[in-house]
Amino acid sequence: MRTVKAWAATSATAPLSATTIERRDVGDNDILIDIAFAGICHSDIHTARSEWGEAPYPLVVGHEIAGTVAEVGSAVTKHKVGDRVGVGCLVNSCGECDACTAGKEQYCPQSVGTYNATDRDGTITQGGYSTHIVVDADFALKIPEGIDLDVAAPLLCAGVTTWSPLRRFGVGEGSKVAVIGLGGLGHMGVQLAVALGAEVTVLSQSLKKQEDGLALGATDYRATSDDSTFEDLRGKFDLILNTVSASLPIQQYLSLLGVEGTLVNVGAPVEPFQVPAFSLIGGGKSLAGSMIGGIPETQEMLDFCADKGIGAKIEVISADQVNEAWERVVASDVRYRFVIDASTI
Amino acid sequence: MRTVKAWAATSATAPLSATTIERRDVGDNDILIDIAFAGICHSDIHTARSEWGEAPYPLVVGHEIAGTVAEVGSAVTKHKVGDRVGVGCLVNSCGECDACTAGKEQYCPQSVGTYNATDRDGTITQGGYSTHIVVDADFALKIPEGIDLDVAAPLLCAGVTTWSPLRRFGVGEGSKVAVIGLGGLGHMGVQLAVALGAEVTVLSQSLKKQEDGLALGATDYRATSDDSTFEDLRGKFDLILNTVSASLPIQQYLSLLGVEGTLVNVGAPVEPFQVPAFSLIGGGKSLAGSMIGGIPETQEMLDFCADKGIGAKIEVISADQVNEAWERVVASDVRYRFVIDASTI
Repeated sequence: MRTVKAWAATSATAPLSATTIERRDVGDNDILIDIAFAGICHSDIHTARSEWGEAPYPLVVGHEIAGTVAEVGSAVTKHKVGDRVGVGCLVNSCGECDACTAGKEQYCPQSVGTYNATDRDGTITQGGYSTHIVVDADFALKIPEGIDLDVAAPLLCAGVTTWSPLRRFGVGEGSKVAVIGLGGLGHMGVQLAVALGAEVTVLSQSLKKQEDGLALGATDYRATSDDSTFEDLRGKFDLILNTVSASLPIQQYLSLLGVEGTLVNVGAPVEPFQVPAFSLIGGGKSLAGSMIGGIPETQEMLDFCADKGIGAKIEVISADQVNEAWERVVASDVRYRFVIDASTI
Repeated sequence: MRTVKAWAATSATAPLSATTIERRDVGDNDILIDIAFAGICHSDIHTARSEWGEAPYPLVVGHEIAGTVAEVGSAVTKHKVGDRVGVGCLVNSCGECDACTAGKEQYCPQSVGTYNATDRDGTITQGGYSTHIVVDADFALKIPEGIDLDVAAPLLCAGVTTWSPLRRFGVGEGSKVAVIGLGGLGHMGVQLAVALGAEVTVLSQSLKKQEDGLALGATDYRATSDDSTFEDLRGKFDLILNTVSASLPIQQYLSLLGVEGTLVNVGAPVEPFQVPAFSLIGGGKSLAGSMIGGIPETQEMLDFCADKGIGAKIEVISADQVNEAWERVVASDVRYRFVIDASTI
């Protein structure tokens, strides 16, 4: 065991505060990571505030982790000391089920989340708002040279969460893709879809971020508050990537899909979607969901980003700014991801 | 123009009655079909009774047509006199849009339905409860030797409506498929999925038709009125084919899908589905729709059925039994398709 510094939630309502936590000894298959940066995901806030179920306190959140390997277990061959590595939303899975063997560990019934999950040893996992973390080597990704660690950190969640459905639904040269919402997820979805060769339209409530969207590579940017958007774009898209958690009139968005198009949700509104059967049957459409991504596709995404020069657009903060940053995330006042400099923890 | 015999709806409430209608002259690209059998689809009833919008009367319905070619237009090379042919739900489309060029004519915005649609010449199309029909040769399918015309007729709608999603979603050897509802569509879905190599479970309200379902090749048959069905089969299926038009607790059915599984609807309940986002996101699932099928896949399905010895399970009736048959269809009292012997029209 080693004692490391961290910022933790001590209750659903208290601000995060500096503390120390214990990390397990480096097992045969483990690596110790010296964390350089940790991205702030809206999920961190939902979890720490017990908005998605009662959280165990004190809890350290953070699942967008980038750093360097400081120590490796005796059986580890994948990484060596000094390697640049990342950890996303998962730190373990059974390794044997259909999901695991297909490289879709996120759907393994026994997968272990990076924080707020019961680990194999019975302890509660503690996340990346910390100076160090010990994880199974197979759940650490290689961060290629050519991506800075700060812009790489958010790729581990926001990047792969948008990458996975873009790949699964075959986005490539000439695909017509719409991205709903230009936030942490959306700004990655736009960049990745553009780099895959798609023609990308951003659908946002207003035109406030239009300039950013076009700079990220979108060729069109439409306000969904304008009814003409839905008339003009009817039947246009092969894939619509919904990154927002607000309730949407989903039937209207389905009407924007072309034949056999898919609207895939990575954001999760609380209210159920109201889906008339004919909005799917006419046109052979699909309403789908997608949750983060598996380990192989996370690596694929990191390699792709390095190759294409893609990273998250970030605002680096020191640890003592984290509570303020959380308020700004809740207010959607960030372009497009806060990243904590772990040297300030 | 030629005058042919038919059974028509004269209002939303009157029983069907014997009459005559005009068929157009055989154009250069047309064929005249001597109809042998016409299947009864529940859509016929909904349409004729103006349950799906005000119908134009008198109206002849029927889009499960099998017969022989009696005359061909000067430019027709696909069929010759005496050929065994079928006509399904479509008699024309634009031929140029993305849907048409992809062989998905059913999604062409200008497709023309076999009845109750405005044809290219401005007339209202009249369907298969008749002795003859004139159609564009490209919309007539070849019925292979080895399938009798009576059991082939329902394949033109019920067959291809279930075939298209089974193929699109990759059902093959070892796939785990559930079919919701064992009616006209469901009994075809079971046979086709089994012949494609799938392990098929029927999900029905009761076990009333269990013996039939197992005889059609299903390996399991479960009552959805029994809560243990949903516990036992949780996460089991790659594809669920929903053939019923009754409202379903769709979240419960989505829970039966495995990772990245799809629930595809070919039945169309009136009430919108209530779909919690997490029921799709967890497991990366899809709720899809599918509408009949295109011309190439209809031919593919007919060839497959001939090869595998598959046909609809039917009850042949004479035309004067059609009103009684409709009442039985509404009461779900048919195993599994009524087919009108057109020689009695």
